Amino acid sequence: MKIYDFEGFPNPARVRIALSEKGLANQVEFVSIDVPKGEHKRPEFLAKNPSAAVPVLELEDGTTISECTAITEYLDHTGAGPKLTGENARERAVIHMMQRRAEASLLDAVGAYFHHATPGLGPDVEDYQNKEWGEKQRERAIQGMHYFDDVLADRPYVAGDKFSMADITAFAGLGFADFAEIDIPADCRNLIAWRQRVAQRPSISG
Amino acid sequence: MKIYDFEGFPNPARVRIALSEKGLANQVEFVSIDVPKGEHKRPEFLAKNPSAAVPVLELEDGTTISECTAITEYLDHTGAGPKLTGENARERAVIHMMQRRAEASLLDAVGAYFHHATPGLGPDVEDYQNKEWGEKQRERAIQGMHYFDDVLADRPYVAGDKFSMADITAFAGLGFADFAEIDIPADCRNLIAWRQRVAQRPSISG
Repeated sequence: MKIYDFEGFPNPARVRIALSEKGLANQVEFVSIDVPKGEHKRPEFLAKNPSAAVPVLELEDGTTISECTAITEYLDHTGAGPKLTGENARERAVIHMMQRRAEASLLDAVGAYFHHATPGLGPDVEDYQNKEWGEKQRERAIQGMHYFDDVLADRPYVAGDKFSMADITAFAGLGFADFAEIDIPADCRNLIAWRQRVAQRPSISG
Repeated sequence: MKIYDFEGFPNPARVRIALSEKGLANQVEFVSIDVPKGEHKRPEFLAKNPSAAVPVLELEDGTTISECTAITEYLDHTGAGPKLTGENARERAVIHMMQRRAEASLLDAVGAYFHHATPGLGPDVEDYQNKEWGEKQRERAIQGMHYFDDVLADRPYVAGDKFSMADITAFAGLGFADFAEIDIPADCRNLIAWRQRVAQRPSISG
């Protein structure tokens, strides 16, 4: 397997954590796509992912998979260890729901703020910006932090008793928030404690 | 099971098609949430889905599941018949990838146009509008139509040889486009032919 990504960026981080959780990290060849230089918008990369985003998983047969949830589904049904996407219908449903909420209200909201209301990756890469939309999404990200703080008041992980794909998305979203300088509100104590606990997992700290 | 939705709306349509494909339609009690009247923003509904959107699946134990992909995962791992979310790691990955592309570039793009650049559901429901963002998303939806037209040049369904969750999302996206008066470009012949074929499935025509 090959992974085309850019180390340190939020969506690549999601897949790198999943790879490590599933014991697959040493089976992957990483290929760096220099996103700040716009390499993700070049024709040879667009042929792998017309959405112009990293990461992309390339299988041995040449199939290319984009979208972190899709890549995580592949890894979770291939690698060893506890399931990141759930063991049964109810778990799968709750994990996919919480994953999507984390994606929309944390990661994508922070991303919209970063790309629209700040210089983002610079004028060569950011070919359309809507500052008002970006600022609105900053508000949404902070609402998302409060929402997940409430969720974590009565459960150890975002989707329940077990670490899952939903935790990975939320963790990457907070990492992106740091980078974009959106602080977690100090009263989000459950969220802050959860983040510290998740950061100690070998898939992240190691 | 209960489904809280509003008949005829695009996301409810996704789940109604999945229910029918899986032979589960007669096991569900539908509860109507009058979205144009703002019932999805009332406290009793927000307790079921803080994202204030239909549909929501409520299980016998009271668990509430929102997000169509999550509901479809539940139904697909509960009901009979061919899998809508794939039989193995590779199928699951391709279906989730294409589903997400259909969601982002068709359904959500049309939704952003409708809610931001038209009167949408009216001033009582649309409490924030960004017309420029909405118009940009209309362009994105038309690009999405061209993308899926290309995809369907060499395969019968959006994710390959079999009908899947990705087709359901794309089909619902085009239904929303009709409602929002975004025409499919006439040269998207593969997309138009696929849509006519999918519309004949008993889960949709019946």
